[in-house]
Amino acid sequence: MSKTVVISVAKLEARVASIFGKGGLSPEHAAALASVIVAGERDGCKSHGIYRIEGCLRTLKAGKVSPDAKPVLEDDGSAILRVGAGGAYSCAAFALGAPALAERARKLGIAALVINDCTHFSALWPEVETLNGLGVAAIAMCPSYATVAPSGGSQPLLGTNPFAFGWPRGEDKPPYVFDFATSVAARGEIELYRREGRQLPEGWAIDVDGKPTTDPEAALAGAMLPFGGHKGSAISTMIELLAGIMIGDFTSKEALDFLGTTTLAPRHGELIIAMSPERFAAGRPGDPFARAEVLFEAIVGQGARLPSQRRFAARKQTLAEGIALSAEESAQLDRLEEVGLAAIS
Amino acid sequence: MSKTVVISVAKLEARVASIFGKGGLSPEHAAALASVIVAGERDGCKSHGIYRIEGCLRTLKAGKVSPDAKPVLEDDGSAILRVGAGGAYSCAAFALGAPALAERARKLGIAALVINDCTHFSALWPEVETLNGLGVAAIAMCPSYATVAPSGGSQPLLGTNPFAFGWPRGEDKPPYVFDFATSVAARGEIELYRREGRQLPEGWAIDVDGKPTTDPEAALAGAMLPFGGHKGSAISTMIELLAGIMIGDFTSKEALDFLGTTTLAPRHGELIIAMSPERFAAGRPGDPFARAEVLFEAIVGQGARLPSQRRFAARKQTLAEGIALSAEESAQLDRLEEVGLAAIS
Repeated sequence: MSKTVVISVAKLEARVASIFGKGGLSPEHAAALASVIVAGERDGCKSHGIYRIEGCLRTLKAGKVSPDAKPVLEDDGSAILRVGAGGAYSCAAFALGAPALAERARKLGIAALVINDCTHFSALWPEVETLNGLGVAAIAMCPSYATVAPSGGSQPLLGTNPFAFGWPRGEDKPPYVFDFATSVAARGEIELYRREGRQLPEGWAIDVDGKPTTDPEAALAGAMLPFGGHKGSAISTMIELLAGIMIGDFTSKEALDFLGTTTLAPRHGELIIAMSPERFAAGRPGDPFARAEVLFEAIVGQGARLPSQRRFAARKQTLAEGIALSAEESAQLDRLEEVGLAAIS
Repeated sequence: MSKTVVISVAKLEARVASIFGKGGLSPEHAAALASVIVAGERDGCKSHGIYRIEGCLRTLKAGKVSPDAKPVLEDDGSAILRVGAGGAYSCAAFALGAPALAERARKLGIAALVINDCTHFSALWPEVETLNGLGVAAIAMCPSYATVAPSGGSQPLLGTNPFAFGWPRGEDKPPYVFDFATSVAARGEIELYRREGRQLPEGWAIDVDGKPTTDPEAALAGAMLPFGGHKGSAISTMIELLAGIMIGDFTSKEALDFLGTTTLAPRHGELIIAMSPERFAAGRPGDPFARAEVLFEAIVGQGARLPSQRRFAARKQTLAEGIALSAEESAQLDRLEEVGLAAIS
């Protein structure tokens, strides 16, 4: 067992921001990226934690993301707000647009934030949680890379297209939040099966000929399948239409064609819809937030779980006790901080 | 083989409207209800066709739906339009709100239509198709009756909560449309297995103790399961929150408590979100409608199907050749037209 190093959430965030600054990102982008990466680590989501730093730096080193483009907010007074990311990472663009989106949703009842021309980085849950913190319910979705075949098809066309939703529960409770890939499994999970030499569960993937396979190698060469059969496939297609085509940005296929690899962070856009429960419930009986708690209690009361509870439990612990990094993780952070992009192969 | 009677779509619509008029519905409600019922019959959706007439009349006879409340549109100039249905069927409320919703989405980019206090009747696909015909993309959702257990739970709490989406494809093509229950199966399907004495596929339902069951009787007494495990369960919960609680209307559990039976049409609300592709794509490269066709071709080109294609094929045929009713169906229409509510047991 290697020794672990315990570090506070705030200190880890400063350290990761410093690494990105050393790598060449502007302070705004370094801070925004550090915030979402440390949120992953804080919530026990290792797959979205500090492990992602190197991928971000690799995309930067490859010249596929702008290190310093200032996100620009366009607001014509309608219910659509738009942030042009100028080819930089998405996190600063979202940070710029989120307060304006929440304000517009409170004013009009419902509003949308479009992020265009970003190199997409971040799970969607930090974003819907940010909006929930501003008092509005939110739906977020985006394409990714074409690695998923439509139900009944044989070729990768759709992305793992995440779909996230959050409902605010006030200051004292974490929001009701889910964020999932519309594929059965994430590509990283199939990679894990491959490394461990295990067969995949049935229904996860097809081979290059479109035949069902449980062989991870054949799956990675072929295509993943959508969750829930034709229903998940339909939702994933909706995401290509709304958060790719409708907002005038790349589909998952176009994102893959653009970079030609899934090893770098993808270029595409994102669509976020915010709704004000106060505005929607105005003049109607009952308080929507109190009524939502009754629903959540009925779910938990029968032994089912609310989504994200594991994350929120990890968060509570790391905020109180700090984040435990392995000696290897800590040494790698030292190395990245010291030599910057030179540490990236 | 019984003889079939062929009737044009327009004539069947007039006949069904006449039945509802005889049953006591105002002309506005009779026409709106006839339109969606005949749309089901026209599209080969027997489960949403003339078979539904008796259920509508039964709810009317039980005094659980207003026969003549005028739907009232509230418009405060924001992105939320609201139609109060006054306890009448939902179809006339939607018909009143749809043009206003499409106009508001074109003006603001995104807008929502809330229907409150309706006795809900209609699949959601006729509604998103109507909006697609007005040039906007649309998402529709509503609760139903609490017959579905949340993933990991043991008791019915969620409804079969349908989720529908439509994307306009111009005058010459039917829209891209899906409309599905967020349960694995519809309650009617389980009923069919029961009548035929067949066992259910695994994963459809649990018994009253929350144990998985393939026995249709046990399933009907217990609870259905959401599609796609925890992901479908999360979407169904989102629908309770947005299209029940947020709009100040019943959840699926409250709808069931209100009527105490699933044999009558439920009282609850509905949420419809419309988006203008022109507004979202404005100033961005590419025409969103042309780009969507490329996506659809890539789906169909690899042997997968677009959703609703069977419906659209049936529609093409019935619009050209008329709708074939069995002699029994035709006789039942005669009887309903002749004696009205007295035909309802």
